Amino acid sequence: MDIAVLGYGVVGSGVAEVISLNEKKITDKLGGERINVKYILDLRKFPGDKNEDKIIDDFNIILNDGDVKIVAEAMGGLHPAFEFVSSCLKAGKSVVTSNKELVAEKGDILLETAKENNVNFMFEASVGGGIPVLRPIIQCLAGNDIDEVAGILNGTTNFILSKMIFDSMSFEDALKLAQEKGYAEKDPTADIEGFDACRKICILAALCFGSHVYPKTVYTEGITKITLEDVEYVRSWGGVIKLLGRAKKAGDKISAMVTPALVKNSSILSGVNGVYNAVLVRGNAVGDVAFYGQGAGKMATASAVVGDIIDCAQNIGKNKGIGWNKAADGAVIDISETETSLYVRASGCKDSSLEKAKEIFGDITVLSRDNAPEDEFAFVTPEGKEGALREKLEKLDGTELLSVIRTVNY
Amino acid sequence: MDIAVLGYGVVGSGVAEVISLNEKKITDKLGGERINVKYILDLRKFPGDKNEDKIIDDFNIILNDGDVKIVAEAMGGLHPAFEFVSSCLKAGKSVVTSNKELVAEKGDILLETAKENNVNFMFEASVGGGIPVLRPIIQCLAGNDIDEVAGILNGTTNFILSKMIFDSMSFEDALKLAQEKGYAEKDPTADIEGFDACRKICILAALCFGSHVYPKTVYTEGITKITLEDVEYVRSWGGVIKLLGRAKKAGDKISAMVTPALVKNSSILSGVNGVYNAVLVRGNAVGDVAFYGQGAGKMATASAVVGDIIDCAQNIGKNKGIGWNKAADGAVIDISETETSLYVRASGCKDSSLEKAKEIFGDITVLSRDNAPEDEFAFVTPEGKEGALREKLEKLDGTELLSVIRTVNY
Repeated sequence: MDIAVLGYGVVGSGVAEVISLNEKKITDKLGGERINVKYILDLRKFPGDKNEDKIIDDFNIILNDGDVKIVAEAMGGLHPAFEFVSSCLKAGKSVVTSNKELVAEKGDILLETAKENNVNFMFEASVGGGIPVLRPIIQCLAGNDIDEVAGILNGTTNFILSKMIFDSMSFEDALKLAQEKGYAEKDPTADIEGFDACRKICILAALCFGSHVYPKTVYTEGITKITLEDVEYVRSWGGVIKLLGRAKKAGDKISAMVTPALVKNSSILSGVNGVYNAVLVRGNAVGDVAFYGQGAGKMATASAVVGDIIDCAQNIGKNKGIGWNKAADGAVIDISETETSLYVRASGCKDSSLEKAKEIFGDITVLSRDNAPEDEFAFVTPEGKEGALREKLEKLDGTELLSVIRTVNY
Repeated sequence: MDIAVLGYGVVGSGVAEVISLNEKKITDKLGGERINVKYILDLRKFPGDKNEDKIIDDFNIILNDGDVKIVAEAMGGLHPAFEFVSSCLKAGKSVVTSNKELVAEKGDILLETAKENNVNFMFEASVGGGIPVLRPIIQCLAGNDIDEVAGILNGTTNFILSKMIFDSMSFEDALKLAQEKGYAEKDPTADIEGFDACRKICILAALCFGSHVYPKTVYTEGITKITLEDVEYVRSWGGVIKLLGRAKKAGDKISAMVTPALVKNSSILSGVNGVYNAVLVRGNAVGDVAFYGQGAGKMATASAVVGDIIDCAQNIGKNKGIGWNKAADGAVIDISETETSLYVRASGCKDSSLEKAKEIFGDITVLSRDNAPEDEFAFVTPEGKEGALREKLEKLDGTELLSVIRTVNY
């Protein structure tokens, strides 16, 4: 069966490599049918590359070749990826993608187009790299009503936080190291500000709750303000700070956000370190289940794309019924309406401030760290609506708030 | 669509409950088609039960009812489960099961029967309760050649070991507590001797490597000999003791075993505590991925059965191609041929024995614990073939071996 790959960058070249590496396994899986990469679309030239003869720069050759039944989109970005994918689906070709931006912004439309044309649109590699996440949620947990989904969805920030936790490395040094190791881009904004994780939680929320969620509607906060002081206080609380994307049912709406969060050491998420990712799903029958693995990397991501290609090849002429509704206006509640407790680090007159905090919040948990300045203190509030907790914080006069971080109960 | 449930015990009644609890979600998933539990087979009576009117004691009513397209087997045991399942498949009904003994002993035959009759035989609930494991391995990791699979596959023993690790509770007390909480049976042999985990690793190995593996061919050792002294020494090594089932390619054969094993604290498996289970899969493209959740429990297990029922309902008239070859003679290598390093606890003249151990093994890692008797010592050997390591151990004359436990590199 002929396929085409759009984009010969990290993921695209990985797809060609995995298909070649595991050719026998894949052919067996398909009952003897071989997957043949017929075209690779890229505007660049790759002289001397083993796939040089397959590289073309005219998308229409792929679109008009009826033998190409499956297209793997690995260009990234919204345009022209959206137009290309849309055209392929309309031309009766199944499409698989690793492009999280495309799925987070246009997933509802593309899934609908796939259904109308009796082909498939699959995107396992768009969340969690090679970790099987989407298919388990759609198929294995089909017997569950899913209440919550949360995850460590970005390897770069998890690497940085792990370095801060285990090696007491500063945020800046850890970021520099991540860049040296190739985990972080030269411009790391999309990772460290949480935008990458935001796209992924939008895809997960749509899958779990059945309606499209636009990234722009999801409160997103990165890890740039996390300090080693916070890491130490949270250690005394018996936990770690992780950047989490999370979404939860809130009546007929949902709450969704990307923020740093305090995770207890007893949580499986606390043990997810370095560039690893994990996704936790809370179902009404199964309880908590989690999926763990490398969230990025050429071969891991490519292997998920190839898994989708195989699934498409097994389902030629049959739409598998993956889909979700369009986003409803105001479907995501404001973050001030979400339930949480807050970790607070502040400076001021320690004893009287803590006294005051107890008056305001009732039962607080006071934290400690070695070598803290005289005037620094930290505590965790009881649970409440975030808006109400923030209002109470304003009553802590005479103190300067240094950090405020949410807690979670995963 | 009509279905039947065989057995109205914990899992069977859970299946009826999950179908009722999540009726709307399931019906949506099936494009408006409702799953109707028409019969429940059980020899017992359940007066006053809400499903009383569905309970029958004649299997032939189910077998001969052409409207029943899917049968959920939740009786357990090999007979008559095998005969019933086999008859159903031959009568053109898809079958889903939570029965690990059935799949581990007869999986190859039943999958073949399903293929011949163009129906499906699914068994997600037979490994890891509600954790999605089988479908991710079959479908999502289809682009990978899988090198290894390992897991914490038994919740009872993991609960006991967790109590020993975190609360310094003795094995006997922890077992008693597990029985009080209903995690362990009155006769806990199948759990604590590793037989339950053995069936599960056989199913995982068959799925990952494509050939049936019989439980009787897999070396199986339980946790009854693990002591708090071992737990303490292993803590100083930076790890924990877990009961692992594991299987690995060894040339064109496989190595497979169930044994206690030393797991480093940096491993995701070390953070799997209490009654939780996890399965780790090592693929040649994706690297390590892991799946985590409750390995047992009525609703969790039932939700996996229901996930399979939905998949069967979506694939009426189409065999999904799950299957593996018959077991080859001698497919599993002898444990003496497997690569490992060994943790050893012994008593004797400490200093001279450790000196001798260094002579025999070369580079050993000496461990310590508080309040150890003068004549007790513990160390970890370098890697080697288990048979060769055991031969070397015999040369440690003048010492009494108290514990020998394998290490793993997951």
